[in-house]
Amino acid sequence: MKQIAIINGPNLNLIGQREPEIYGRQSMEEYVETLKKQFPEVAIQYHQSNIEGELVNYIQQAGKTCDAIIINAGGYSHTSVALHDALKAVNLPAIEVHISNIFAREAYRHQTLLTSACRGMIVGLGLQGYALALQALLGQDR
Amino acid sequence: MKQIAIINGPNLNLIGQREPEIYGRQSMEEYVETLKKQFPEVAIQYHQSNIEGELVNYIQQAGKTCDAIIINAGGYSHTSVALHDALKAVNLPAIEVHISNIFAREAYRHQTLLTSACRGMIVGLGLQGYALALQALLGQDR
Amino acid sequence: MKQIAIINGPNLNLIGQREPEIYGRQSMEEYVETLKKQFPEVAIQYHQSNIEGELVNYIQQAGKTCDAIIINAGGYSHTSVALHDALKAVNLPAIEVHISNIFAREAYRHQTLLTSACRGMIVGLGLQGYALALQALLGQDR
Amino acid sequence: MKQIAIINGPNLNLIGQREPEIYGRQSMEEYVETLKKQFPEVAIQYHQSNIEGELVNYIQQAGKTCDAIIINAGGYSHTSVALHDALKAVNLPAIEVHISNIFAREAYRHQTLLTSACRGMIVGLGLQGYALALQALLGQDR
Amino acid sequence: MKQIAIINGPNLNLIGQREPEIYGRQSMEEYVETLKKQFPEVAIQYHQSNIEGELVNYIQQAGKTCDAIIINAGGYSHTSVALHDALKAVNLPAIEVHISNIFAREAYRHQTLLTSACRGMIVGLGLQGYALALQALLGQDR
Amino acid sequence: MKQIAIINGPNLNLIGQREPEIYGRQSMEEYVETLKKQFPEVAIQYHQSNIEGELVNYIQQAGKTCDAIIINAGGYSHTSVALHDALKAVNLPAIEVHISNIFAREAYRHQTLLTSACRGMIVGLGLQGYALALQALLGQDR
Amino acid sequence: MKQIAIINGPNLNLIGQREPEIYGRQSMEEYVETLKKQFPEVAIQYHQSNIEGELVNYIQQAGKTCDAIIINAGGYSHTSVALHDALKAVNLPAIEVHISNIFAREAYRHQTLLTSACRGMIVGLGLQGYALALQALLGQDR
Amino acid sequence: MKQIAIINGPNLNLIGQREPEIYGRQSMEEYVETLKKQFPEVAIQYHQSNIEGELVNYIQQAGKTCDAIIINAGGYSHTSVALHDALKAVNLPAIEVHISNIFAREAYRHQTLLTSACRGMIVGLGLQGYALALQALLGQDR
Amino acid sequence: MKQIAIINGPNLNLIGQREPEIYGRQSMEEYVETLKKQFPEVAIQYHQSNIEGELVNYIQQAGKTCDAIIINAGGYSHTSVALHDALKAVNLPAIEVHISNIFAREAYRHQTLLTSACRGMIVGLGLQGYALALQALLGQDR
Amino acid sequence: MKQIAIINGPNLNLIGQREPEIYGRQSMEEYVETLKKQFPEVAIQYHQSNIEGELVNYIQQAGKTCDAIIINAGGYSHTSVALHDALKAVNLPAIEVHISNIFAREAYRHQTLLTSACRGMIVGLGLQGYALALQALLGQDR
Amino acid sequence: MKQIAIINGPNLNLIGQREPEIYGRQSMEEYVETLKKQFPEVAIQYHQSNIEGELVNYIQQAGKTCDAIIINAGGYSHTSVALHDALKAVNLPAIEVHISNIFAREAYRHQTLLTSACRGMIVGLGLQGYALALQALLGQDR
Amino acid sequence: MKQIAIINGPNLNLIGQREPEIYGRQSMEEYVETLKKQFPEVAIQYHQSNIEGELVNYIQQAGKTCDAIIINAGGYSHTSVALHDALKAVNLPAIEVHISNIFAREAYRHQTLLTSACRGMIVGLGLQGYALALQALLGQDR
Repeated sequence: MKQIAIINGPNLNLIGQREPEIYGRQSMEEYVETLKKQFPEVAIQYHQSNIEGELVNYIQQAGKTCDAIIINAGGYSHTSVALHDALKAVNLPAIEVHISNIFAREAYRHQTLLTSACRGMIVGLGLQGYALALQALLGQDR
Repeated sequence: MKQIAIINGPNLNLIGQREPEIYGRQSMEEYVETLKKQFPEVAIQYHQSNIEGELVNYIQQAGKTCDAIIINAGGYSHTSVALHDALKAVNLPAIEVHISNIFAREAYRHQTLLTSACRGMIVGLGLQGYALALQALLGQDR
Repeated sequence: MKQIAIINGPNLNLIGQREPEIYGRQSMEEYVETLKKQFPEVAIQYHQSNIEGELVNYIQQAGKTCDAIIINAGGYSHTSVALHDALKAVNLPAIEVHISNIFAREAYRHQTLLTSACRGMIVGLGLQGYALALQALLGQDR
Repeated sequence: MKQIAIINGPNLNLIGQREPEIYGRQSMEEYVETLKKQFPEVAIQYHQSNIEGELVNYIQQAGKTCDAIIINAGGYSHTSVALHDALKAVNLPAIEVHISNIFAREAYRHQTLLTSACRGMIVGLGLQGYALALQALLGQDR
Repeated sequence: MKQIAIINGPNLNLIGQREPEIYGRQSMEEYVETLKKQFPEVAIQYHQSNIEGELVNYIQQAGKTCDAIIINAGGYSHTSVALHDALKAVNLPAIEVHISNIFAREAYRHQTLLTSACRGMIVGLGLQGYALALQALLGQDR
Repeated sequence: MKQIAIINGPNLNLIGQREPEIYGRQSMEEYVETLKKQFPEVAIQYHQSNIEGELVNYIQQAGKTCDAIIINAGGYSHTSVALHDALKAVNLPAIEVHISNIFAREAYRHQTLLTSACRGMIVGLGLQGYALALQALLGQDR
Repeated sequence: MKQIAIINGPNLNLIGQREPEIYGRQSMEEYVETLKKQFPEVAIQYHQSNIEGELVNYIQQAGKTCDAIIINAGGYSHTSVALHDALKAVNLPAIEVHISNIFAREAYRHQTLLTSACRGMIVGLGLQGYALALQALLGQDR
Repeated sequence: MKQIAIINGPNLNLIGQREPEIYGRQSMEEYVETLKKQFPEVAIQYHQSNIEGELVNYIQQAGKTCDAIIINAGGYSHTSVALHDALKAVNLPAIEVHISNIFAREAYRHQTLLTSACRGMIVGLGLQGYALALQALLGQDR
Repeated sequence: MKQIAIINGPNLNLIGQREPEIYGRQSMEEYVETLKKQFPEVAIQYHQSNIEGELVNYIQQAGKTCDAIIINAGGYSHTSVALHDALKAVNLPAIEVHISNIFAREAYRHQTLLTSACRGMIVGLGLQGYALALQALLGQDR
Repeated sequence: MKQIAIINGPNLNLIGQREPEIYGRQSMEEYVETLKKQFPEVAIQYHQSNIEGELVNYIQQAGKTCDAIIINAGGYSHTSVALHDALKAVNLPAIEVHISNIFAREAYRHQTLLTSACRGMIVGLGLQGYALALQALLGQDR
Repeated sequence: MKQIAIINGPNLNLIGQREPEIYGRQSMEEYVETLKKQFPEVAIQYHQSNIEGELVNYIQQAGKTCDAIIINAGGYSHTSVALHDALKAVNLPAIEVHISNIFAREAYRHQTLLTSACRGMIVGLGLQGYALALQALLGQDR
Repeated sequence: MKQIAIINGPNLNLIGQREPEIYGRQSMEEYVETLKKQFPEVAIQYHQSNIEGELVNYIQQAGKTCDAIIINAGGYSHTSVALHDALKAVNLPAIEVHISNIFAREAYRHQTLLTSACRGMIVGLGLQGYALALQALLGQDR
């Protein structure tokens, strides 16, 4: 059974509590439950932290116990060399996800340091981005 | 039945002829056939051109006859205000796709002018990116 | 009788179909008819293309058959050295027109490569900008 | 009867005294007289100052007594946040005029802070630019 | 009774121990005691951490339990998108404080990412900046 | 009795006449009267000019007759080396005030040349910013 | 017999008609005839287009039928990622030629995106540059 | 008898009152008296203003009545297109003087817009710079 | 007996587990043991954390208990104002070490904010860099 | 008989000793002998120096004794104003040669200060570049 | 008797041979003779070299034997940290001279690294600049 | 016996004569003597020149006769492509040394072009940096 870590960064614990008209009333935790049902053949490990270094820890742990990583590092994506290095070091297939379209927002969100350490990126497609990333990591079409 | 245009830009007509060890021996045309079978509920219109202005034409046509657009403008993605304007003008849901991870390549590929006129972007996930974009436009999970 | 070419670039064929509350319901073609009646002493040639190189062609043709050029190259204005060179090469009096106020929009619209190859520019004054450009080329006051 | 202020900035009081081969021997004051005859239905108020803050004053006065503004702020156009703010504050229709083609001159003249606070700009069309701006403000074709 | 969180970032726990000739010998903790006496109508919650993500946590907690935030994120102010996002997310009135005049120091301190997510900023007025921020949040004059 | 000069720059004479829903209907002159009552122990000298050089003059005069300066140079704040030099030359304690949050507005307002010649800055706290600046200069808490 | 494509971009069809004092009265077509006589051992295919995407087409065709490419993409040289990609994709020996010395002209002509996809570049040596490029591709000295 | 205008900009009226250990106790007015004695063959007109536009006025006046200009525009030197234009317009031999070494101070003082409109510049040589500029304008050696 | 803290940042806990052909199979912990034997006259305190703020904590603790610091902040080196401030605050002799040659890697690794708060830096000399830094802090030659 | 100077800069004396698989085993000196035989109608003067100023000397000498210059200034090409000035001063036809394709290497090699003082440049065509430059200077086709 | 070194950089040995309509037919050597007569109370040492490092040598020698330095480093002025360091090291009063107005020429001549290591600079005043620099170093008025 | 070249650049011949309170009264020559005694197993060749090209020469000579290089190119470090190329060409292990902490000085000293052609760099550790570099090249711990 494949082990895949979903690692979420700062403020992503607030999904579902805020702006329900956009994201619905489902929390990230609930969404992860949905994902688990949708992908029963995958053991999904979900981690969230507001602390950059704990995200480094989660990536390093995934390097020991997982087959792939889905990472949404939120605001750290734009400046974190440490997360880039961790992803490079564990050398697993990884996909970066952003729920909103970061390229339609402020200029400082148009660059992410993580993508170059990942296989690719899915941006702006809402929570569904995580499901699509899982499919891509599994090499499965619909 | 939903009409969705897939619009491919310069040099994407060479897929399948070159670097088969990376992309397999399937041409884009063959892949589109696969997609059509995979998504029988969608009428897929496939267009490719090496000419920027013809891509503008295809987007404008899609604006009259389609429900959504998947666009991979290749090398024009990085400089084309005209394609950005066309996407804005037709005002359809659109998703940008790049087969390779443009953020792990030369610096002049790290910026695309199109994403801010689209709902989102899928990058680096190979030909499967088109299938994932279709799913996202249909709001379908696996 | 003076020959003047009006050359319009990408997406300007959509005028009149979109945002009628701003530009009215008159298409560019209808507006050109109005212009022809308003300036009976001028033979107006109207060209539109979404293709950058066809705009180069129209400029070169005007260089052989016209006395002046009015150019609105839309999204190509901001990056096209080829259009700049064509305008320099034909060496006719030319005026650049933009319907909207490009200096009140995104930063990448604040620079145009064409103005330095023209006599001047009229920006943000709607379709009337074309009429004012004609007057300027004719050296006529109201 | 419409009140329109024409506000000219530094060194524009020298028009007519210098480079008559370019601009003729007509001073700006004489040209304003011509304009007044050409537009008898408009009450034209003409102001010139070499002092940036006096231009702010003239814009604020126009805000109380005029229906529209034509502004050529000369060398202050490229750096003056104060003039931008004054134009924004009075909230009248305004058109920026430059006699010469500032986009064919030194790089520091290629940007003006004022256009984004105006309806539009007319550049490089000589003194006629003022007449064309008046027409545009009156919504009159020839 | 109004709840207001004062959240201090890295190295601000050293106030009072160092450079007493500048800041006096009062520690930040002692100063908070003074503030509490000075503003008995406010319940002041004081948090300090050297860890960026813990500051995100404190902001999120304040979002649930407080009416306003005073934030001095020290060295994280200049690069932290995560703190900006947290302040935006909790959507409370917030004021940024810096004890020293960051605009008279190194160039990399001249920009803060937080101010645009706050109502305003007080800079360079020493520890008194916190008291003034409290007054501003209370809408009280002296 | 302490003499403190409040020096306001371009367009700040319009406070109270415009956007009363934001700033109320109180003019700056009326607000200064309120301040004088609130701080009876201070002799407040209020100056406003739209002319950069007159602001230099007011600063130089304050250097001879006042104990401190509160400066809001409006649009000149972002480019004026002359005002910076005047503040440096008179060498009085000075505080820069901005009524709106300049760091949440256009990029060209994010830099001020004056702060490095002042003790500090208060930004975005409305007219109350002047009162808080007075308190800071007097070293008074509420 | 070696097949070599000479591919010329926008406005290069005007050679010979303009500025004969510089380039003589020989058109590019005539010059190509001269080249063919001078290099009878080479089958020279000459293509010119003002349309960027047609140049991509010509490069792709050359990739199937030629042994080498000489490219002068005129104004597209400075911005075209699509032409760079086409040259990379066909993977033939290619030499970039510019008739004039682009490094002694406007700053935006000092960079070309094509050279890094070519073996080398010949600049500023007039029409002879094409002959020298042919020699280089043939590995022939005089 | 040669007429030469010395035009001084903002804050230069404070020379002699401040920092006497550097500049001595001589005011600029007194120094001008010394200059007049030292150069009896020249009619020196001395003007100082803190107002940028008044400096434009003085330059324009000098254009009518003087043979040459010595200009020290202080803080306006670094941003004033208006002063550059005035110097260009009057077309007199002009020399820029700065008392201190502006190239050893803050980066924003390293550029002056005026020098390119002058014959040359003398920097960092104290008040003597004015005397040397006079000599240069007179073409006199010691 | 001298107390010296060695403080390592993110991902440096992976040394020895990865890329043994480069660094050997010795972990950082083992290397520290070697160092302790090699420098018996020094009490070496070794700290590693992936969390930026914990590195700030370790620096502050060292400020109370140590005589000098050796810091390798890994990916935080390039952006951390907080670590710079902590090093400045504790005011101990400090040396920055990087195991690999950061100046031969990606451009965003070419700048470190920490060096200006240290005595110096040793870069690219592998684990031996720590031993050399110790020698330098002890002022000992071989 | 025409005199042509070939002037080579730093490290070009190592050609032939290093990387023979690329350049063959011919030294530059031997290649110059070949050139002399190939162009018997030209008196070729060959100079090499690692010292920038000696290259200036060689250019100045060529200005007195030669008809044309071929210059490959190696690493000095990218920064040397002095060599640019020397080439401008001697005012001979000159061609810049680079053996490798400098535009496919590090970014700091993409700019040369010399080309704008030369007739043109030949880049990336190996040692043959010198022969082609000679032909161009002689105006000879094959 | 005061010893003053005049140190001239690359291409300044050509003065007098070229462009006599600008500089006259006097060589620098002849001009130095004139200077010696004009300043009999000074022992002038004149050095010129095209080699940057020899200019460093001359500055170091002057540091041992002279009282002041006049330096015109020509094209090295814009890039030479070594000359800056030499001037700083010898710590003599030094004045930088440029014969032409470098600020009215190409952008890369607008910055000199030397001025910040000198007392001041004289620019654009021809050969007379050296005489004026001598006067300034002697503290002599005319 | 290992041959190691120590190559010092401009102004490093002044060590010991200047600022003895910082570096002591030992000249570089004396220090090299100390080094020779300290490292009897190494044949140290010491070269110093103020001339960039002579440093290139020394590196090339070292390439023929030495096993490793220690280079301190002083002011040339920040701009010299020629020295970078020489180090690359000789392909010996090399270490860059700077006596002072160049990253705590002017911005133009924060970049060196040499490090990327070396194994590593030692910065800010005084003359001891040379001894540490020797140890590193010998792979010796204390």
